[in-house]
Amino acid sequence: MAKIVRVGLLGLGTVGSGVFEHFQKGAGRPFGIELKTVAVANPKKERDVKVPKLTKDVNKILDDPEIDIVIELIGGIDPAKEYIEKALRNRKNVVTANKAVLARYAKGLFALARKQNVDLAFEASVGGGIPIIQLFRTLRGEKITKVMGILNGTTNYILTKMEEGLTFGKALNDAQKRGFAEKNHILDTGGFDARDKLAILTMLIYNTYVDPQNILCEGITKITTVDLDFANRYGEFEGGISYTVKLLAIAQKENGILHLRVHPALIRKTHPLANVTDEFNAIYFEGELAGAQLHTGRGAGKNATTSAVFSDILRVANNIRRGTPGFLPTLDAKVSFGNADTLIRPGYLRMDLLNEPGSGAEMFGIFAKHKLNVRNSIERHKYSYQYRRKEFVPDITNIDAASEKVIKEAIFDLKKSKRVRGKPMFIRFED
Amino acid sequence: MAKIVRVGLLGLGTVGSGVFEHFQKGAGRPFGIELKTVAVANPKKERDVKVPKLTKDVNKILDDPEIDIVIELIGGIDPAKEYIEKALRNRKNVVTANKAVLARYAKGLFALARKQNVDLAFEASVGGGIPIIQLFRTLRGEKITKVMGILNGTTNYILTKMEEGLTFGKALNDAQKRGFAEKNHILDTGGFDARDKLAILTMLIYNTYVDPQNILCEGITKITTVDLDFANRYGEFEGGISYTVKLLAIAQKENGILHLRVHPALIRKTHPLANVTDEFNAIYFEGELAGAQLHTGRGAGKNATTSAVFSDILRVANNIRRGTPGFLPTLDAKVSFGNADTLIRPGYLRMDLLNEPGSGAEMFGIFAKHKLNVRNSIERHKYSYQYRRKEFVPDITNIDAASEKVIKEAIFDLKKSKRVRGKPMFIRFED
Repeated sequence: MAKIVRVGLLGLGTVGSGVFEHFQKGAGRPFGIELKTVAVANPKKERDVKVPKLTKDVNKILDDPEIDIVIELIGGIDPAKEYIEKALRNRKNVVTANKAVLARYAKGLFALARKQNVDLAFEASVGGGIPIIQLFRTLRGEKITKVMGILNGTTNYILTKMEEGLTFGKALNDAQKRGFAEKNHILDTGGFDARDKLAILTMLIYNTYVDPQNILCEGITKITTVDLDFANRYGEFEGGISYTVKLLAIAQKENGILHLRVHPALIRKTHPLANVTDEFNAIYFEGELAGAQLHTGRGAGKNATTSAVFSDILRVANNIRRGTPGFLPTLDAKVSFGNADTLIRPGYLRMDLLNEPGSGAEMFGIFAKHKLNVRNSIERHKYSYQYRRKEFVPDITNIDAASEKVIKEAIFDLKKSKRVRGKPMFIRFED
Repeated sequence: MAKIVRVGLLGLGTVGSGVFEHFQKGAGRPFGIELKTVAVANPKKERDVKVPKLTKDVNKILDDPEIDIVIELIGGIDPAKEYIEKALRNRKNVVTANKAVLARYAKGLFALARKQNVDLAFEASVGGGIPIIQLFRTLRGEKITKVMGILNGTTNYILTKMEEGLTFGKALNDAQKRGFAEKNHILDTGGFDARDKLAILTMLIYNTYVDPQNILCEGITKITTVDLDFANRYGEFEGGISYTVKLLAIAQKENGILHLRVHPALIRKTHPLANVTDEFNAIYFEGELAGAQLHTGRGAGKNATTSAVFSDILRVANNIRRGTPGFLPTLDAKVSFGNADTLIRPGYLRMDLLNEPGSGAEMFGIFAKHKLNVRNSIERHKYSYQYRRKEFVPDITNIDAASEKVIKEAIFDLKKSKRVRGKPMFIRFED
């Protein structure tokens, strides 16, 4: 038998417990891998898993010369980033599921791992149980022109329930009850989790550092049943095709410019991504040679993430025995990123309009001022409501493709109008 | 820059030309990989690609000490197998798309490659541009309980066209015109190509040798528009759900027994595989931890296969520089394979029945004799026809799940009946 590989685990949350239980069931044995030490912030906390000799001293792992691989499953940026760095400095291989740390510090951490000649593996950071990270590493020779992903299971679950008729609030509640959404849900519903994952994928695909802060990011908190209903019935108004709303993470290369964005979008129900429902994740991409591909599976949850972490552990153990770590990109390729303002998409504006003569004229006047060409404008009286003794009605106006800058300016003017309640919402169409 | 890796190419068919053109466009340059020599059986043959210094002497590749990687794209068993062996014996790494050779000789070739400490890579042998081989290597720690694949693009294209109303013959013709089917189509339409691919996947997943000859294998040559029409309208007769017909390659582990089979099957239109149309391939599988996953993309064709071959070349070049080849399974795990006769599936029997009183009674009598429980029996008069002045009508009889052995015996009796024309066809339902 080859050298026994010893593992230390930081964190016993949902995923950490899954990894611990997997080892407890003997999963490491056939591969000569042993879980030696588990460290948590609070060893006295009540837990579902019973771990013998739980320590709160992370250095019992980070400084233990016997430990070959550190599994970081604490999550969040601090102190997880510090622990990963210390592990690498101590020439330990690291397996992590931490998208927040990777999205921000990948360049430095990759460089440190290369310098120390150790592995830094992060399959579990994107796409849960779907081996997406390995997939894009495998396709390193492929010119990838477009990536569209459903990368956040929580929001996909919420949108699926909203399509079935639930309001955002009720769908969120349901997701929280089932453990798909956390109490503080804004990292998911605000699109930030999907944004960090898109940054990581983009780094791998284009070998360039991407600051997640620079990615256009809109969440689903302002999506309403009016949008889902409209998408579903769109065919009645135009073209006979019905749509659905998905939170998409998109990387698209056009004329040498790479556009990155995360936002809810309307896609045709016949699109391969439209059938990805509930908490599932999916990656759709187009390669110059490989063509269009779709990869779908469970994007989150204890088991799927444990599967990804364990596949990393096996790969790293194998690399340790071969005496050479896996490839990590340098992230120094020159890439021109598109400014969000120059992005040109078709879409619709939804706003709550005062139900009185003249409202349409004012709205159309603003569209005309900004040279936005209206395809159709539909008032959804089914959803009209009273506010301070006035009746408001949600209006959906389809406009031809225009730049985000122009749309922002139109929204600014519309928001100022006394005939429009609240801020108009722009929702883009994707194919 | 690291050591230049030099490549020799055997074969200039569709895929060979694709790989040659890819190198010609400079794809190898950023990775320090050079295509040095190309060998073909007949250098004087008219070709679309112009290759300088084409040789017919394969030993100019196999014996060239400068060449690190041999790309075998000749196809077929002889002499491809001999060349692969010689390359490995000469300590050259091999990249091949040859499923026929791998399905038969994987065990010996893997052992030889391990002994010689070189790579044997075969991403292009299954699933075209979808990195399926790497996928299952990545999931080495995963317990996979079920695999269902659409592994042959030709038959999937034909079945898609048949669903649109074409007969088998016309759909085959169309596929041949578009280059999706060869003149000698039986390797595809008979299910043998899918069977070899299933053998390769099973070897990787279960680390055991699988003789493709032992896999239950039925092609689509006897599928008719009656089947497609019936599948589509099934919901009218029972349960309200419509089905489609796909040629499926299935590996399923039940009670420790592994059943392997390739056959046309009815699947619900809501099944993830039902939407995989035309020449696309797909792999659906269920992992104990990873859950259900679907991976779909172009399964064949010049570009998709070139993408897979090139990803192998990059991986092997990387391994050469790291000084250690990739992992190849030993294929020596003990696995209990199920006997096809003991397989129990629901399905229907389609037969051409003499349209005269007593035919139904005779047929039902035979079902009763074999203790087959009939759910419903539907004569499709739309498809009735005259044969030697008698009228025959296709009848579809749904039966409850029964063993293949019993069904075979019933078919034997039905075939003997003078009221049944030809051999009844059994078509299984999958979920």
